[in-house]
Amino acid sequence: MIILGIDPGLATLGYGVIEADGDRRRLIQFGTLTTAAGQPMPQRLRSIFQGMNQLMDIYRPDDVAFEELFFSKNITTGMAVSAARGVALVAVVERTENLYEYTPMQIKQAVTGYGGADKHQVQHMVKLLLHMQDIARPDDAADALAVALTHANSMAMKKMFRIQ
Amino acid sequence: MIILGIDPGLATLGYGVIEADGDRRRLIQFGTLTTAAGQPMPQRLRSIFQGMNQLMDIYRPDDVAFEELFFSKNITTGMAVSAARGVALVAVVERTENLYEYTPMQIKQAVTGYGGADKHQVQHMVKLLLHMQDIARPDDAADALAVALTHANSMAMKKMFRIQ
Repeated sequence: MIILGIDPGLATLGYGVIEADGDRRRLIQFGTLTTAAGQPMPQRLRSIFQGMNQLMDIYRPDDVAFEELFFSKNITTGMAVSAARGVALVAVVERTENLYEYTPMQIKQAVTGYGGADKHQVQHMVKLLLHMQDIARPDDAADALAVALTHANSMAMKKMFRIQ
Repeated sequence: MIILGIDPGLATLGYGVIEADGDRRRLIQFGTLTTAAGQPMPQRLRSIFQGMNQLMDIYRPDDVAFEELFFSKNITTGMAVSAARGVALVAVVERTENLYEYTPMQIKQAVTGYGGADKHQVQHMVKLLLHMQDIARPDDAADALAVALTHANSMAMKKMFRIQ
């Protein structure tokens, strides 16, 4: 099963693609979509929409997992991220209903076993779980891999406890 | 020139379509796109995206004018509206670059001549300017007609003061 993980953002949207087969996890790709602060908002949102469409075309994920937005203390940033996230969600849901969302705490819990883990612990576990030589950079891409891994675990758990 | 005015929202997005020719204004259509609060967010956003695409198909506007988002005091509402607005902007900018934004104060100023006008004064002027028998309902549709009228006036002014 191919899983696309998304850490939404307007300036930088992180993505991570993994393959999950039972309890095996394989890294396929990770990276970011970026938009320039100087561009008008509609053009930045269009870039994200088109970039997301390309990711869907290239990797044809079975499932897509988004990090849920926490309520930003900075309302201007929160609203920009919310717009970018909305646009990314539509690009996915136009193609598949297999869309899932996980909170930051669920992601930390799933990847490190501890819901209060810090960013470095999460990044280190992502590296270990995907047999990577280095920690994924930038942070947004590492976070996207973490949400993809969270979804893989969640699916494996559901299967394990399914009534036969 | 056909102008599509948009008052963005997640539960209710108002739209208004007018024709502007010099200082003449003609009402073409107004209404709302609505999404049910019980639906998941991605499906609600997809409805807005698809509804906006239909509006663009049906009315083929030359220009599209959006009401700018004021910073909501309710962050949850603000972020939902921001996501809906982002999705609506992308539906437009995928088809035309002729996209304009006006603040609530600019709209009040343009439609009533007074930036501190209240909602009823704006709605009454929309009715007068477009020779309507009744005030447009719901408010979101009336607001969308107001932003379309604002854009028509703004374009007429630019033309009037253009250096020949």
